Amino acid sequence: MPITTLSGKQFIGGQRVASGAAELISLRADNGQPTGYRFHPASRHEADCAARAAQSAFAAYAQTSCRQRADFLDAIADQLDALDDDFFTIVQQETALPPARLRGERARTSGQMRLFAELLRRGDVIGARIDTAQPQRVPLPRADIRQYHTAIGPVAVFGASNFPLAFSTAGGDTAAALAAGCPVVFKAHGGHMATAELTAAAIERAVTQQQMPAGVFNMIFGERIGADLVQHPAIQAVGFTGSLQGGRALFDLAQQRPQPIPVFAEMSSINPVIALPQALAQRGRHIAQQLAASITLGCGQFCTKPGLILGVHSPAFSQFITELGQQIEAAEPQTMLNAATLRHYRQGLRELDQHPGIAHLAGRRTAPAQQATAQLYQAEGRLLLAADTRLQEEVFGPVAIVAALDDDTQLLQALNALQGQLTATLLADDADLAAAAPLLACLTHKAGRVLFNGYPTGVEVCDAMVHGGPYPATSDARGTSVGTLAIARFMRPVCLQNTPPSLLPPALQDENPLNLLRLVNGVYQRDPL
Amino acid sequence: MPITTLSGKQFIGGQRVASGAAELISLRADNGQPTGYRFHPASRHEADCAARAAQSAFAAYAQTSCRQRADFLDAIADQLDALDDDFFTIVQQETALPPARLRGERARTSGQMRLFAELLRRGDVIGARIDTAQPQRVPLPRADIRQYHTAIGPVAVFGASNFPLAFSTAGGDTAAALAAGCPVVFKAHGGHMATAELTAAAIERAVTQQQMPAGVFNMIFGERIGADLVQHPAIQAVGFTGSLQGGRALFDLAQQRPQPIPVFAEMSSINPVIALPQALAQRGRHIAQQLAASITLGCGQFCTKPGLILGVHSPAFSQFITELGQQIEAAEPQTMLNAATLRHYRQGLRELDQHPGIAHLAGRRTAPAQQATAQLYQAEGRLLLAADTRLQEEVFGPVAIVAALDDDTQLLQALNALQGQLTATLLADDADLAAAAPLLACLTHKAGRVLFNGYPTGVEVCDAMVHGGPYPATSDARGTSVGTLAIARFMRPVCLQNTPPSLLPPALQDENPLNLLRLVNGVYQRDPL
Repeated sequence: MPITTLSGKQFIGGQRVASGAAELISLRADNGQPTGYRFHPASRHEADCAARAAQSAFAAYAQTSCRQRADFLDAIADQLDALDDDFFTIVQQETALPPARLRGERARTSGQMRLFAELLRRGDVIGARIDTAQPQRVPLPRADIRQYHTAIGPVAVFGASNFPLAFSTAGGDTAAALAAGCPVVFKAHGGHMATAELTAAAIERAVTQQQMPAGVFNMIFGERIGADLVQHPAIQAVGFTGSLQGGRALFDLAQQRPQPIPVFAEMSSINPVIALPQALAQRGRHIAQQLAASITLGCGQFCTKPGLILGVHSPAFSQFITELGQQIEAAEPQTMLNAATLRHYRQGLRELDQHPGIAHLAGRRTAPAQQATAQLYQAEGRLLLAADTRLQEEVFGPVAIVAALDDDTQLLQALNALQGQLTATLLADDADLAAAAPLLACLTHKAGRVLFNGYPTGVEVCDAMVHGGPYPATSDARGTSVGTLAIARFMRPVCLQNTPPSLLPPALQDENPLNLLRLVNGVYQRDPL
Repeated sequence: MPITTLSGKQFIGGQRVASGAAELISLRADNGQPTGYRFHPASRHEADCAARAAQSAFAAYAQTSCRQRADFLDAIADQLDALDDDFFTIVQQETALPPARLRGERARTSGQMRLFAELLRRGDVIGARIDTAQPQRVPLPRADIRQYHTAIGPVAVFGASNFPLAFSTAGGDTAAALAAGCPVVFKAHGGHMATAELTAAAIERAVTQQQMPAGVFNMIFGERIGADLVQHPAIQAVGFTGSLQGGRALFDLAQQRPQPIPVFAEMSSINPVIALPQALAQRGRHIAQQLAASITLGCGQFCTKPGLILGVHSPAFSQFITELGQQIEAAEPQTMLNAATLRHYRQGLRELDQHPGIAHLAGRRTAPAQQATAQLYQAEGRLLLAADTRLQEEVFGPVAIVAALDDDTQLLQALNALQGQLTATLLADDADLAAAAPLLACLTHKAGRVLFNGYPTGVEVCDAMVHGGPYPATSDARGTSVGTLAIARFMRPVCLQNTPPSLLPPALQDENPLNLLRLVNGVYQRDPL
């Protein structure tokens, strides 16, 4: 029996709207039964209205000050923090994620709203640059040129199943877009629609409280409607977290528009972990334990799950593989996010089982219904050198593949043959560092984040984080979807030439009333002109 | 008779390479006759070799320090400045551009190499950010995360016909890519191949002198080979300056690759100029003179040529149009860059002549062979409100269209209906500024650069310049192809987590040996940690 009442309608321009029947059914993750909540799939007209509502809000919202948007983001954070036990009960029903994890994820979600608020108050996202006039310059005088960054326009955001809060309705892409001054149209994730409605309602309360323009945030339900959204002329950028197939499909649609738009899709990564000899010799057993914990954390449902473990043939590496296998074998089955995720996981395992160059090493072969067991495979090193497709593709869930290379040279070749990654990890002791240097140089060209002596699950939300990387990790290596640099995806530079002082935005005024750090005639300074 | 000897071969990995016949013929712009220089079209194999040469150079070149790259760019600038009278004779033959203009353009080209060198010595392109570890943080400790920007990979660059130096072989895109740490494969422009060879040879001399890796710069001849280049897996980004049709074709190819890559194409802009009432009343005649000079400068062959002049119906605006027509009528015919450019110009005029909503106002209807005459047309205001295709499309050459709107409201509607632009200009006196404010707000969403009381031709190369704008002005509104921010197109962020001090790049080391301005725990500072 439902514990609260949900309307199941679209969020469009501050109104709740629906036509047709509420035929989308929210399901429990643990048994596939209905939670009792039903949702209206958005019609094409409603998708159009949502995009137009965002467009209508754009002119006013893009003109808000950084401080106003900071207050808005803080208000959203407060609303998220006020979500009650009923909310968590519903999220847990829809995702099977444990309560402690969900509480932590909520803190992360409101925390990243507040981090973007802090960023806006710091003001450097404006990127103010001023080159003052040189009327006496010969042969030609120089005009006064002043540059800043402004919002790119309405953004369509597609959330992920595996982070129903931090990468969904009020997640990182929404936070970055709203911080940039871009209205958002969010496509609710079908795996947690009730969660999405409660989260969107929290955002709406903040919109009202802060008197933001109606239409600054919109949300529509339904699966096929995402294509309409990406093709809508009002939409100027896309944020996406999910599968390679889904992300690439939206990317292709966006590039085929009359006016192509940037798509920031975070998609597929196998997150290689390279275990170097001295580290294995010193603490091989500990590494096996920690690595198994990272592979199985959250049932392996992280985009940064380590999926490929590499080393050079040696007795210590063989021993390490044995111990890693024991850890994987001992891991308890876990419930996956939904039936489709479990089905994809099992399909991925079947493909590994059938691959002639890949052998099953460890992992229980039977599991309770709806649950997944951790698995470990071993691939022949030659598959890596040949950039084998199956090996390069992520299997979402608690599975990893180990592979041993003949020597350091072959290891470097294998890394060079990898596609783009979100993360790459070097497990290295001091005595390994000389060997690690060329590997690091290679990995910085392959991944968005390179770690030493840690595990890639767990992505810190901070200024320096890069959660991105070359294709297919993302569709644009120049972006990050976690951390404050994420805002740059949704801003574009503009410059003003010989603008009368009364029309200059505060960021570019001579007096520097916002006390910004500005690049003035080639020197960073906070001084007035 | 040729005044120097050119081999006409590709520049690949520091070697001159050619197969097949030298069947590409360099032509004089003024009479279409051969200059005497012939070039070998690159074979597909040669295009592949050029891309591989760039890839081979990448690992070493991306690891060079900012200071090393700065020295390299300065050396290129010196080589450009050392090009002699024979060089200018050849450029003039191929482009019909006057000697003074070409000398100025050479100064601009070497000047922008030196500006990027200065930028590299300043070091802020690295974008260093450090979030230090918080081992005691609860519930989870924070790792040490350090972010920097690194080169995206080999870049294919396509130059423009209208700036044979500043937007061609050693032009802005080449300078930005080399500054970023990206090797370049340049596709020589068919309109000035001899110019391209002499320029590439100058770059090669700097490569040798500075002991840069062979393959850091490559150049191939031929038209159809550009598609191969853009599709080559080694190429990681594209810079292009030219037509909408050409840029879009390369963009589409790049997005259809197995691994899509960013394309920064600077394409089509009509650069609206809005003349406000008080400015017209105070100095209408002067504006007409200045505007006509901007329309006809360099035979209208600038991407920032003002192509659309807007105002509100009034006797002053009518008078201004009359005066502008007189100026256009009085303009002398000029030789265009080449026969194809002239053919396109005449085709564009024919389309305007045939358009039922557009009337011819002024301009001589006959011209010497190979020459173009300036033209002025008037369009009905309703065409703008309906976003008429012909009106939105650039006609490259000395032609502009004027249109009068009924009132301020309709003027704002007309601006809102415009596509993306490189520039937009407001001609406004103090008494116009209240009316200009909403127009400015609109134009900052439409253009990369908004000017007051100036003319858009003439693009300053400086930190604050934006030569970009929403589609179809460019294929990515988040880039600029002029000014130091252009380097950002070819860099991507990477972060390092818990990296041993001995493996940190200097930019991220605790001691801050490069004295960079870094974002450390949310505060910009140059202090060591």
